[in-house]
Amino acid sequence: MPRTDLPFSRRLHDIEPFHVMELLRRSRELEAAGRDIIHMEVGEPDFGTPEPILEAATRFLATGNVHYTSGLGMPALREAIARFYADRFGLDIAPERIVVTPGASGALMLALAALTDPGDVWLMPDPTYPSNRHLVRAFEGRVRALPSDAAQAYQPTAAQVESAWCDRTRGLMVASPSNPTGTLIAPATLRALADGVRRRGGTLIVDEIYQGLTYGVAASTALAEADDAFVINSFSKYFGMTGWRLGWLVVPDGFAREIERLAQHFFIAASTVAQHAALAAFSPACMAVHEARRAEFSARRNVLLPALEALGFGVGTAPEGAFYIYADIRSLAPDCETLAHRLIEDAGVAATPGIDFGEFRCREHIRFAYTTGIDRLEAAVERIAGVLRG
Amino acid sequence: MPRTDLPFSRRLHDIEPFHVMELLRRSRELEAAGRDIIHMEVGEPDFGTPEPILEAATRFLATGNVHYTSGLGMPALREAIARFYADRFGLDIAPERIVVTPGASGALMLALAALTDPGDVWLMPDPTYPSNRHLVRAFEGRVRALPSDAAQAYQPTAAQVESAWCDRTRGLMVASPSNPTGTLIAPATLRALADGVRRRGGTLIVDEIYQGLTYGVAASTALAEADDAFVINSFSKYFGMTGWRLGWLVVPDGFAREIERLAQHFFIAASTVAQHAALAAFSPACMAVHEARRAEFSARRNVLLPALEALGFGVGTAPEGAFYIYADIRSLAPDCETLAHRLIEDAGVAATPGIDFGEFRCREHIRFAYTTGIDRLEAAVERIAGVLRG
Ligand SMILES: Cc1ncc(COP(=O)(O)O)c(C=O)c1O
Ligand SMILES: Cc1ncc(COP(=O)(O)O)c(C=O)c1O
Repeated sequence: MPRTDLPFSRRLHDIEPFHVMELLRRSRELEAAGRDIIHMEVGEPDFGTPEPILEAATRFLATGNVHYTSGLGMPALREAIARFYADRFGLDIAPERIVVTPGASGALMLALAALTDPGDVWLMPDPTYPSNRHLVRAFEGRVRALPSDAAQAYQPTAAQVESAWCDRTRGLMVASPSNPTGTLIAPATLRALADGVRRRGGTLIVDEIYQGLTYGVAASTALAEADDAFVINSFSKYFGMTGWRLGWLVVPDGFAREIERLAQHFFIAASTVAQHAALAAFSPACMAVHEARRAEFSARRNVLLPALEALGFGVGTAPEGAFYIYADIRSLAPDCETLAHRLIEDAGVAATPGIDFGEFRCREHIRFAYTTGIDRLEAAVERIAGVLRG
Repeated sequence: MPRTDLPFSRRLHDIEPFHVMELLRRSRELEAAGRDIIHMEVGEPDFGTPEPILEAATRFLATGNVHYTSGLGMPALREAIARFYADRFGLDIAPERIVVTPGASGALMLALAALTDPGDVWLMPDPTYPSNRHLVRAFEGRVRALPSDAAQAYQPTAAQVESAWCDRTRGLMVASPSNPTGTLIAPATLRALADGVRRRGGTLIVDEIYQGLTYGVAASTALAEADDAFVINSFSKYFGMTGWRLGWLVVPDGFAREIERLAQHFFIAASTVAQHAALAAFSPACMAVHEARRAEFSARRNVLLPALEALGFGVGTAPEGAFYIYADIRSLAPDCETLAHRLIEDAGVAATPGIDFGEFRCREHIRFAYTTGIDRLEAAVERIAGVLRG
């Protein structure tokens, strides 16, 4: 007889399901019934893992020795990541500052667990990557959302941070490029945000998971502007390694030892197979693959962005990174759920309703991911046009 | 200029380092200076990953498609785990009840996050696997340790649970076989514990990560005794997959959907490579490998256990599982740290001081892992004998 008296924690009650999951279920139903669905809701590259990375993993597997690594990650990988900051950004980041994690997810979890006391407040833009607020909640912190619209590139301003700060504020979380908006924070703005947070005695967390994926703008890192930031990164997106579950966290000098204690209990360590594979991710041959993919994303963006605008979607600030377009739908539909529903049912196009990302004007937005080929994007635009005319 | 005003959370301050880390650092120093160290502190099998698992991973990598899986894990793997319960234990566990996680570590984290409100109390034996109390702390719960000595096989009794229960008690966490003690909970005792916890409206969490590694006793699962328990398991130990980071959690009927929301934010999903690899872990060929390794562990145990007793170590209750011997050192040294220190410095033998596992009589114990070959175990015994005589 099933028990009904096993109450879940309050934190679990507070965690919302992704609305896009409903949509995914529906698209699977439609696909099972023979409908062709164009997937523009998917938050990961459609490309497979680059060959050199697969080869490195296969070579490692041939040894058979897949044991735990140390909690902060393999020294060779931490050094490779440090070299990446030197080569690409001209920055001197000691390997000792790099914590290898199970994805950016693991890095976000570690940073928040290490920095958040119950009741502490984290500022973050609204809209934002949904896990941010749920992870803050998981460690009994609170979120103060900073309403961020197209006029401010969907990113918080220093003035907003200043006026929202209270005595329980622990710091500010931002992402550049951002999910869901694809917008960047310019280095000077980042520096102003960091200065403001530092002046208040807080901590800045910058999620750079989409770092390498910028279009018409050079990739950058917050570490160039704020050496005291906690910087999140991942092999998932630019490096094409989503399913491997590998990321990293850069912490200020001397902080990794403290974080290690937490990492050991949370994870023991990140995947050893993934760590050996990732050693190949920075090789010149592999960087060439990453850059070719970036060029492909750029071409897709250049097709999709004007096409959506021509259809009446509003893109007040051009997304310069990631693989998302966060489109204003006000001239097309009463709200994002209605439109997402019409798109999947009538056009066979799956896109993510804005309400997955927050509350501020989220009903007025829908997120398109260009994680499918140009032919499919063009087909999607045509089908959407038919439905909107229709 | 490094900042000094970045306070870590109170939870981080409360998390102790592993004392064995000190020892590891020292053994690396000694090894670098040319000393031969016998490692009996290592909590993972010395064997590599079984061939069939490596082959499955390599075949999967050849596809190159290493994308995210769904948050609860690949359906095929959840079904394979369900079949494992049917084949090995004759139990009908629906695949829908199985949550695939990044190791038992991830399963423990999910279970505790889903069940613990701030201030809630978890009962657990002392000594115990150290991460248990730190993960409870991470989610703002509290631990009430149940002092458990050799006379009760280092496991809590139903009477202890009954008398320790208070109105904030959330449940009981046990492991069978246990780390650090290698002792089991007999099915009837487990049932009594489960009944007591259920009567109080609490939840029982049973960590079965060492499930397949029993000697002279058949492997068992708490699910046969208590269908409402949260049961932790892992591919790390019996299946030889530590570095892959893959485990699972069995939850009561209908609970996985709730847990999924949390799993998505914590992990997105477990490693796709590991999941494909693990599909091979239950094949007859692979089970034969696991069983051969169990036989090897059994042979090691049969050498080490009497040898340690002959040296004056006390083993009040024979460990019947895992690969640990939790030895009473009272007749040999004033405390575990003194002895661990002597063993590493004078005998070149690394073992884990009891204080890593709790407070109750932990100073009087040291943990030996037989995760190295019989020749090395014999050499260790000889060297320890020399030091103790000396
Ligand atoms: C902004 C952002 N941060 C973090 C993550 C987590 O990614 P991963 O854990 O695969 O590195 C994602 C995934 O979509 C993301 O969009
Ligand atoms: C009792 C116990 N539980 C859980 C774990 C975590 O193991 P893993 O995350 O590799 O499955 C360990 C590891 O030593 C353990 O001994």
